[in-house]
Amino acid sequence: MITSNQNSKIKLVRTLLGRSKERREAGAFVAEGVRLVEEAVKANWKCRFALYDETLSERGKSQVESLKSHGVDVEEVSASVMKSISETEAPQGILAVLEFTNPSTSSGPRLPIPNEPNFILIPDQIRDPGNLGTLLRSAAASGVQAVLIPPETTDAFAPKVLRSGMGAHFRLPIHSMSWDEIEKVIKSESLEVYVADMDGQSCWETNLRQPIALIIGSEAEGASESARKLANGKISIPMSSETESLNAGVAGSVLMFEVMRQRTSNE
Amino acid sequence: MITSNQNSKIKLVRTLLGRSKERREAGAFVAEGVRLVEEAVKANWKCRFALYDETLSERGKSQVESLKSHGVDVEEVSASVMKSISETEAPQGILAVLEFTNPSTSSGPRLPIPNEPNFILIPDQIRDPGNLGTLLRSAAASGVQAVLIPPETTDAFAPKVLRSGMGAHFRLPIHSMSWDEIEKVIKSESLEVYVADMDGQSCWETNLRQPIALIIGSEAEGASESARKLANGKISIPMSSETESLNAGVAGSVLMFEVMRQRTSNE
Repeated sequence: MITSNQNSKIKLVRTLLGRSKERREAGAFVAEGVRLVEEAVKANWKCRFALYDETLSERGKSQVESLKSHGVDVEEVSASVMKSISETEAPQGILAVLEFTNPSTSSGPRLPIPNEPNFILIPDQIRDPGNLGTLLRSAAASGVQAVLIPPETTDAFAPKVLRSGMGAHFRLPIHSMSWDEIEKVIKSESLEVYVADMDGQSCWETNLRQPIALIIGSEAEGASESARKLANGKISIPMSSETESLNAGVAGSVLMFEVMRQRTSNE
Repeated sequence: MITSNQNSKIKLVRTLLGRSKERREAGAFVAEGVRLVEEAVKANWKCRFALYDETLSERGKSQVESLKSHGVDVEEVSASVMKSISETEAPQGILAVLEFTNPSTSSGPRLPIPNEPNFILIPDQIRDPGNLGTLLRSAAASGVQAVLIPPETTDAFAPKVLRSGMGAHFRLPIHSMSWDEIEKVIKSESLEVYVADMDGQSCWETNLRQPIALIIGSEAEGASESARKLANGKISIPMSSETESLNAGVAGSVLMFEVMRQRTSNE
């Protein structure tokens, strides 16, 4: 049992919970809690090692057994060490260090962008981890096929984003890119680019059935200059009065489900 | 200038930031921050008194002048006292104590339920203040005319709900009610009642143009027994696969804007 904060695994976890640079360099990130670890295992995500403590629930314990039977290196740690590396107020007693293992880039995400994608999400200048997690969760639920993360947006693999993403990270290709790289993807796939904006065309009166990339800017700053340059059009959610607004996570979710509605309903 | 934590105004503010019972008994609640106080003033909400400190921004200072010119009792407090009563990590140096002043109930909310409402929201068993605030904000933006809060849902006038509501509280009738009272409103107004549910009818294929009440249950527990008894039907947001889900704030927002879409778009 690991009881020291100086143990090399504990030190690695602490590093990976910090800045995105550290995660990129190590080629790994941390998923904490029973639900997230379960989702990672279900999606066959490659696990470098996992740690648990005695406070783990029954559901968590059977997860530990399942990880061991898959040959994963699983170690028990003392509850106080787990507490010291936990990001949550009520730690669930389990976490896993997972690999980014796209063989072509080594630092990139595991799932590739599909061929001829018809629905891509670009969260633009989204700095709040909760909002980014909400966008990823709604993206997975509304049929988005890939998420491109420009440099100004917070790292998608930060602990809080993983938590509010509720497992979307393991089912959705999420790629950090420069704006030049994003432009290349959009041009080569001939996507229409719409940016969410206060004074755009009504999303209900815009044809969103063709292959599109949807850019959601931050609540405070709106869309960036780079995003606006790339966009073919602006779309808005009509609201009951001009004083109203929505946060980026909610606005993006409403728009993504509008895309899904247009594509799947019979109207 | 108030420099003591024992000052009666400071003690009242601290009480009002606590439990809903205290707010009901005092007939008042606290709005903190420049934006919220501004929204309250714009909506002519009755202000018992306001407090500010020297850290206040220029925009906040002109607000103080405006409050004074309306005859509001405004006092300066020391920055350390303000910090001790602030709920936020980065206090903005202003807060207002506002009255619930519905003349008929004295403890009820200020804005009455309109005659013949055609869109009512019922947040059911929503315990997370952020989710309830999100629902209220989206409600104000999507044309909801009144929000009925059953006993199991967290108090709408708790500080965190006010913060994430972003001023929706001052534009939307929000009424705490027992399920019996809610049923009475629904029957007397002949509203169709839809409850959001995982296995309901697609919201895109449900006619939401008639007068309705929409019940949003919590993510963890779903809708309550009382809610299900009241409902005429269950509606769902179709998702890309069965493993997906949304949090209550987002799911409710998508559904509320679907109601608005059906009522305003020309399709």
